[in-house]
Amino acid sequence: MTNERQKQTMDGLGKIVESVYDQLNDGDIPKMDISLRSKKNIEFDPRHNVWKYGDLQTSRNCKTVKGATMMLKTLHMIDFIDTMIVENRSSTLREMYYISEGWGNGKFNSQDESNMMAEDLEIVSKYMREDFKLRPEESGASILGDITISELNRKGERKTINCNDDVGDSGYAIPYNVEKEKVTIKPGNAKFIVAIETGGMFDRLAENGFIEKHNALLVHLKGQPARCTRRFIKRLNEELKLPVTVFTDGDPWSFRIFASVAYGAIKTAHISDYLATPTSQFIGITATDILNYKLPTDRLSDQDVSALKSELTDPRFKDQFWVSEIEAMLSMKQKAEQQALAKHGLDFVTDKYLPEKLTDLGVL
Amino acid sequence: MTNERQKQTMDGLGKIVESVYDQLNDGDIPKMDISLRSKKNIEFDPRHNVWKYGDLQTSRNCKTVKGATMMLKTLHMIDFIDTMIVENRSSTLREMYYISEGWGNGKFNSQDESNMMAEDLEIVSKYMREDFKLRPEESGASILGDITISELNRKGERKTINCNDDVGDSGYAIPYNVEKEKVTIKPGNAKFIVAIETGGMFDRLAENGFIEKHNALLVHLKGQPARCTRRFIKRLNEELKLPVTVFTDGDPWSFRIFASVAYGAIKTAHISDYLATPTSQFIGITATDILNYKLPTDRLSDQDVSALKSELTDPRFKDQFWVSEIEAMLSMKQKAEQQALAKHGLDFVTDKYLPEKLTDLGVL
Repeated sequence: MTNERQKQTMDGLGKIVESVYDQLNDGDIPKMDISLRSKKNIEFDPRHNVWKYGDLQTSRNCKTVKGATMMLKTLHMIDFIDTMIVENRSSTLREMYYISEGWGNGKFNSQDESNMMAEDLEIVSKYMREDFKLRPEESGASILGDITISELNRKGERKTINCNDDVGDSGYAIPYNVEKEKVTIKPGNAKFIVAIETGGMFDRLAENGFIEKHNALLVHLKGQPARCTRRFIKRLNEELKLPVTVFTDGDPWSFRIFASVAYGAIKTAHISDYLATPTSQFIGITATDILNYKLPTDRLSDQDVSALKSELTDPRFKDQFWVSEIEAMLSMKQKAEQQALAKHGLDFVTDKYLPEKLTDLGVL
Repeated sequence: MTNERQKQTMDGLGKIVESVYDQLNDGDIPKMDISLRSKKNIEFDPRHNVWKYGDLQTSRNCKTVKGATMMLKTLHMIDFIDTMIVENRSSTLREMYYISEGWGNGKFNSQDESNMMAEDLEIVSKYMREDFKLRPEESGASILGDITISELNRKGERKTINCNDDVGDSGYAIPYNVEKEKVTIKPGNAKFIVAIETGGMFDRLAENGFIEKHNALLVHLKGQPARCTRRFIKRLNEELKLPVTVFTDGDPWSFRIFASVAYGAIKTAHISDYLATPTSQFIGITATDILNYKLPTDRLSDQDVSALKSELTDPRFKDQFWVSEIEAMLSMKQKAEQQALAKHGLDFVTDKYLPEKLTDLGVL
């Protein structure tokens, strides 16, 4: 049994196949247009307040063997996705790569290639990888705090889980597909979200009673957050009206974690309005925090310096706050981890650092 | 309120401090003896059927500034652990490293150094890092299947969670401390354990209904398994009498994952009888599987070759099965991932591969 959304997905993918068929039928060499996926084609979308792909397009055609092979792979992948939808199954991106072993000349050369093509199909069809029943290797991050989830599991049973009362210390693990058909969310006492980069800091806030004291909802991002984690944060923000704050290490890679939560990631800019939460606020660690709190630091590596410089030309970091923080970090040549706050004791982050930050932002 | 085990831990650490004090009092330069922690000091312990440290010892003394500084760090760490036990708190290993910023000359130079010292304290005191209230960054792996957990969470409340019925698709996340005081386990329909290296394969077995069809209990190892994951598997094996099978990629690093589950890891050989499950059985991917099932492979890297050669001199891999599999892999120069079985379709692993393997071993 396929539902409405699944039928629409198959129709959307079917149109790509029809277009190839029609071009061949008309005696044309088939081609497929697709948005250029790079930093220079990122534009601000004022309607959704996120950064999305602009108008620059690149064209894939079958004039070369390589191009024709790419088209063949595309059609094989659409066929595979169709089968999964009809059979109500799913597959990891890695499994799909291995399954392509059976596709003859349509076999992928690497998993990067098959992953990228799954994203290309999203851009062209306007449907999502989750609609295609393709999963990443690892599931999403963990949540702790007073909200209640109702999740339809893979056996078709619905489970109701309160993210405070019905879970162990590790919290509720966000599944790969968090769409309304799978997961619904009911409010509880939680008043705002702290999305946290590291597991150590997530546990610290939980152990220190930060959840109960401030009615906080903690989300462990696990580094660069999975799509389902970002989508879930957006739903919490939209449906429960919870303000989102993001708490990371103080280095260029962590700034990008914030950017992907708040503005959208370059790789997934075609679905930024679906994944990004534009009202998210950054609560450190900033270069200023490193100075103010005299945090233990590490010297910036050459890669760190390049990443910071690249951020200065990234439209997502164009506002005054980010320009001055990035320039400050470049001039001090130091970075710091969020757990470096432990220099001042295990309670410093929950007794002083976060209350000050959150009060400044009007969240507390 | 400290419990009996906590009092014993503080007494055990206290003896180390007393010994230093007594040596100083007697006018001796203080020293501390500790097992040599390398492959050449790994011996088979026939009583527990695991590999443990042998009799080779190394001595730390205060005859040099470096040695004296190490002793100072040790005493600071014991003091910190005592405080955590008394205040009923815990800390990540990373936080402890940063907290040492306040210890003057007792400050650690790197987290490797502080991690290693926490393990040294385990060896000398015979208590565990979990007793010291020290946590790794990330929590343990996930479990799906019909058993019931009762977990005392950090707020002191006890939660009862059935690992099939009360969790989402991601399963129950194993907390860092799985001792009886924190976690108790009740049997259900689960008859045996499949411990799985990758999340993709864990999800595959769950999606394909392997749990229900065979009354399996799935444990996601998440690569090299955390201590709590290994300890939890051992408890499931001992308390519920569930046979343990281990299903990994086919490469030298995955063989080590099996060894750490079955025989104990070199780094934690002082607590092998606590972490290892000697009756664990390996169910692939082996070099033989790669040939039999014509799996897609990658060429062994230089690091892979060195790792395989090193395993040939590792006492844990001395039996005929491992010697012949390692030599076969060296001669074919290829490795394969467990998800490579998807070459034969998404059902191959649950319809054919695993039933054959498990029947051969007498598990099914």
